[in-house]
Amino acid sequence: MGLRVGHATRVGDGWLTGTTVVLAPEGGAVAAVDVRGGGPATRETDALDPRNAVERIEAVVLSGGSAYGLDTAAGVMGWLEERGRGTRVGPGAADVVPVVPAACVFDLGRGGDFRARPDAAMGRAAVGAAAASEPGAPVAQGCVGAGTGAVVGLLKGGLGTASTVLDSGITVAALVVANAAGSVLHPGTGALYGELILGGGRTASPPAEAHEAARQRLAEAAARNAPPPRNTTLAMVATDAVLTRAQAQKLAGVGHDGIARAVRPVHLLNDGDTVFALATAARPLPATDRLALNEVLAAGADTVTRAIVRAVRAARPVDAPGGTWPAYSELYGEP
Amino acid sequence: MGLRVGHATRVGDGWLTGTTVVLAPEGGAVAAVDVRGGGPATRETDALDPRNAVERIEAVVLSGGSAYGLDTAAGVMGWLEERGRGTRVGPGAADVVPVVPAACVFDLGRGGDFRARPDAAMGRAAVGAAAASEPGAPVAQGCVGAGTGAVVGLLKGGLGTASTVLDSGITVAALVVANAAGSVLHPGTGALYGELILGGGRTASPPAEAHEAARQRLAEAAARNAPPPRNTTLAMVATDAVLTRAQAQKLAGVGHDGIARAVRPVHLLNDGDTVFALATAARPLPATDRLALNEVLAAGADTVTRAIVRAVRAARPVDAPGGTWPAYSELYGEP
Repeated sequence: MGLRVGHATRVGDGWLTGTTVVLAPEGGAVAAVDVRGGGPATRETDALDPRNAVERIEAVVLSGGSAYGLDTAAGVMGWLEERGRGTRVGPGAADVVPVVPAACVFDLGRGGDFRARPDAAMGRAAVGAAAASEPGAPVAQGCVGAGTGAVVGLLKGGLGTASTVLDSGITVAALVVANAAGSVLHPGTGALYGELILGGGRTASPPAEAHEAARQRLAEAAARNAPPPRNTTLAMVATDAVLTRAQAQKLAGVGHDGIARAVRPVHLLNDGDTVFALATAARPLPATDRLALNEVLAAGADTVTRAIVRAVRAARPVDAPGGTWPAYSELYGEP
Repeated sequence: MGLRVGHATRVGDGWLTGTTVVLAPEGGAVAAVDVRGGGPATRETDALDPRNAVERIEAVVLSGGSAYGLDTAAGVMGWLEERGRGTRVGPGAADVVPVVPAACVFDLGRGGDFRARPDAAMGRAAVGAAAASEPGAPVAQGCVGAGTGAVVGLLKGGLGTASTVLDSGITVAALVVANAAGSVLHPGTGALYGELILGGGRTASPPAEAHEAARQRLAEAAARNAPPPRNTTLAMVATDAVLTRAQAQKLAGVGHDGIARAVRPVHLLNDGDTVFALATAARPLPATDRLALNEVLAAGADTVTRAIVRAVRAARPVDAPGGTWPAYSELYGEP
């Protein structure tokens, strides 16, 4: 699709956070957003309303740092301005305003220092890493970038990706930062909700002994950690389909279904759940099917669910000054 | 909670449809709505925007008949006007305009006659049945009222209810009309998605032989039926909690998570998925907990999921001029 992903990650000395930038090909991508959480931290989301002026955007930022982390977008704006990328607003080719939508997860204090949070320099580092990568290159997952300080229920959360190619040849991909007040685990079995829904069915539940041991470990961790005051799951659904901005907004909305199938409960007052949609507009929707968008919508929700499963499975345990978070793979093993 | 539910049902001679009315106690309930489907059929939903004037409403209508079925609300308005119930707009006690929000599912032609659809008289019959019932009386489920003509994927859909009482003493209940383009069944096992998420875990999957036989029956039915051009899942989440209209709207929004966990995919262009929330405002949220609403939100989503499971399990097979729809209980047995 031509999208590039870059991470900036900082761990230790009070830090446990990071920033992830999704960089569109030059000229930008159609973008939209749907905010469903009760405690969002976002920037430039109103500009994405299909009724408003901006047609395409060059980059989206996902970051740790709660509302403070929105400063990362300034670094990405600076990087884009230097390259003359953004909405042209003056006579000179360099007279641009890059609209850089951003959303942040709450991870303050998890590394030990409440003030150790992503800033403009970290945003600049992440967009630089994105620009240095190949389009379509594998994206590092787990405790990296905006997923570095993520926590899901009592488990370590993280960043995950997934993608699928539809029969029409259209690609739908998702990148998520799983950091939720709710749980990704069926309480009775330890199965991941997302795998119960998407998986083979009978095989999704771990052995009962593993679940019993995991419950004890999680109860111990819960006794040591303060309950997180805020959370947030962020997702980006991207496709190479030709979508209008309104269609992209519908895709962002249905992306929340993918979060709901992987995290329960979700969209609470202390979640800031936000889904962006990006369309690089390379492949028209099949013209013969009035409902062709449905396939993209359904795949968007499913890739978000799958990316949350990947994020949780890729996370590694963290024992930091701000808390102790076991990882799913450590407790339940690999699939 | 003081809410009463009444059904009007008509089957045979080309009919397979009906109407359900939820009637608030006199003086009304706080109400809100969240529309997430791509093909909604609704009436008086803009009046429920928390910024707009109407504080309380007396009744909500769920109906078959697609957009034509919105006429049922006229019958409910007439019934309420005769009793002086509604927003007072003149000097006389009887000078009222009852705001009656309504949403409809697509079931046109399923009974054989495209024009056999609910009208004002059927709305009046349903509100009359509601008024004649006891508050809190058991509600008939399955192929009844607005669920009469409902179809979920290849299965017969229907109407279902569920409720729970939180530790705080607050009750949260849901009533749904399950009529979706997507499926409620895990394709690999025949388990209901909603039971995989909410149920005991390991026991939710039917025996493999039952699933194999069911797949054949469903494939036969699919070969006979035209794919439904439109669908829609409707839900009403009700609570006796004291909620502001904005809080009620949040509850309606999170109710869609409960649909997403039971139906996959959902919120498509040919779904008109709409969730209403009603708060009878008898019990204040616990004042000691800043996030007390979260418990109501989480329970709202879960009761919607459970009500969809109940709707599907309560449905009975239908072989009508407009199609043949096996029922889950017929294919897979009772739990």
